[in-house]
Amino acid sequence: MKKDSELMSVFPSDAVVAFQGAPYAFSEIAIKKYFVVPVSTLPCRTFEEVFQAVDSGQAYCGMVPIENSLTGSIHRNYDLLLEHKLSIIAEAVLPIDQCLIANPGVKLDEIELIYSHPQALEQCRQFLASLKNVEAVASYDTAGSALMIRDRKLRNAAAIAGKWAARDLGLEVLKEDIQDLSPNFTRFFLVSRQGTSLETPTRTSIVFSMKNIPGALFKALSVFALRDIDLFKIESRPLRNRPWDYFFYLTFVGTLEEERCRNALRHLGEITFFVTLLGSYASRMLDNHE
Amino acid sequence: MKKDSELMSVFPSDAVVAFQGAPYAFSEIAIKKYFVVPVSTLPCRTFEEVFQAVDSGQAYCGMVPIENSLTGSIHRNYDLLLEHKLSIIAEAVLPIDQCLIANPGVKLDEIELIYSHPQALEQCRQFLASLKNVEAVASYDTAGSALMIRDRKLRNAAAIAGKWAARDLGLEVLKEDIQDLSPNFTRFFLVSRQGTSLETPTRTSIVFSMKNIPGALFKALSVFALRDIDLFKIESRPLRNRPWDYFFYLTFVGTLEEERCRNALRHLGEITFFVTLLGSYASRMLDNHE
Repeated sequence: MKKDSELMSVFPSDAVVAFQGAPYAFSEIAIKKYFVVPVSTLPCRTFEEVFQAVDSGQAYCGMVPIENSLTGSIHRNYDLLLEHKLSIIAEAVLPIDQCLIANPGVKLDEIELIYSHPQALEQCRQFLASLKNVEAVASYDTAGSALMIRDRKLRNAAAIAGKWAARDLGLEVLKEDIQDLSPNFTRFFLVSRQGTSLETPTRTSIVFSMKNIPGALFKALSVFALRDIDLFKIESRPLRNRPWDYFFYLTFVGTLEEERCRNALRHLGEITFFVTLLGSYASRMLDNHE
Repeated sequence: MKKDSELMSVFPSDAVVAFQGAPYAFSEIAIKKYFVVPVSTLPCRTFEEVFQAVDSGQAYCGMVPIENSLTGSIHRNYDLLLEHKLSIIAEAVLPIDQCLIANPGVKLDEIELIYSHPQALEQCRQFLASLKNVEAVASYDTAGSALMIRDRKLRNAAAIAGKWAARDLGLEVLKEDIQDLSPNFTRFFLVSRQGTSLETPTRTSIVFSMKNIPGALFKALSVFALRDIDLFKIESRPLRNRPWDYFFYLTFVGTLEEERCRNALRHLGEITFFVTLLGSYASRMLDNHE
């Protein structure tokens, strides 16, 4: 990891970082934990608006969740990465501790409705199933649900959100760590129009497509295996104009500074329709303490 | 394809087939097109309830969507396949033509709200973006949205659903084929507690997990590539108790009647934590005419 002073020398001091959700959403927490020093944030209603804000220059970069360790990839953001041609300039991994949050004095057995983002409800499926006569309601986002129950002074409702939302909104945490299993992590990508990694890059993400012929994926993976290049993750998404053909998003260890990585990508180019570089970047585990 | 009489000789005559959604949902259309002769259907509120109905014996089998060619896999149903230990006994592929449906006489410019299942809204993203001052509202399912606007006699709202829902509910189709791109297909799995394929099986689905070590997926795919076994599809889902390790769902051409397929699975067993057979079955393209 670069020292803060190094990191901030790459990053413009007046830069704005966009995220999806209301203030205190996990994406905003990831921004605050990642940059350490204060940066301006821009809340957006949808992931699409985050990418548009970065595309238009309204924001310098955007922090978007790409995968949760319990519920899997956030596929919409894979699609948006390709549609908007932005670069990944950093990865941040945030431990996620979901909390049941209510207005002060409200007790668990008074609660009839629990509001949160569908992803958070999904992470807490077992906890929700254990409650009697409680309805889970999908809403805009985690922190926004907490804000809503505070503003409407609801006594029969709670929200699932991070402890930061409770602390800063003057709400109470009724129960901590309510996700199905611990630990629970979310991986975020920091995306930008310009492709300079904020710290010394260690891994590279690409996207490619190929005809769905027998053994095609095997051949694609072999260009890395034959050169002892480790893969982190591969994810497929449909090619919308060709039923049952796919884009493959792949992350490997190494950068284009290394000859074997350049050779692997040239080799991959021989057997695919196209290969696009999404970025070389560093990955950093964030702490989730106050 | 077996003749209807053969198919029905495997299938108990009083069998009930469960599906998610309201009557005329695409899943129910898939059931009716697949079986040709009338079968009893059981509408369920959630995918989980479909699997539970089959697990408990309330239904003989369930028809669940597994992948759409525009929006990708329905990941929840991959997870449920493993949680409920049901077998895949058939695959059905249904062409999906999404329609904008309203009460008779309602005009496009009167519409302020459009209700449908989130997957259908996602398939029609470009159409929805082209409308001014219209809000898309996620709801329980496609056909259920059509039923709701009819029962409430809404004049400012429409639903996105199949043409069958319009025809049978006495509603009007304002616009056909509104999905982003044609053709648009959904693949369904017919799942059952007993594992007998309804027609002569041609393909096999398995799920396995392995440590996320360098080259692990490459090695797994090589057991098929080395034996010239064609793969249709591979999908990864998180191993919920081990962050960043995955289950892999894989479908290959062939069945355990073939020695090379048995050898491939034995070989796969050497390098994985576990391999589970989900079923050998036939895939059939359904027609979407009346």
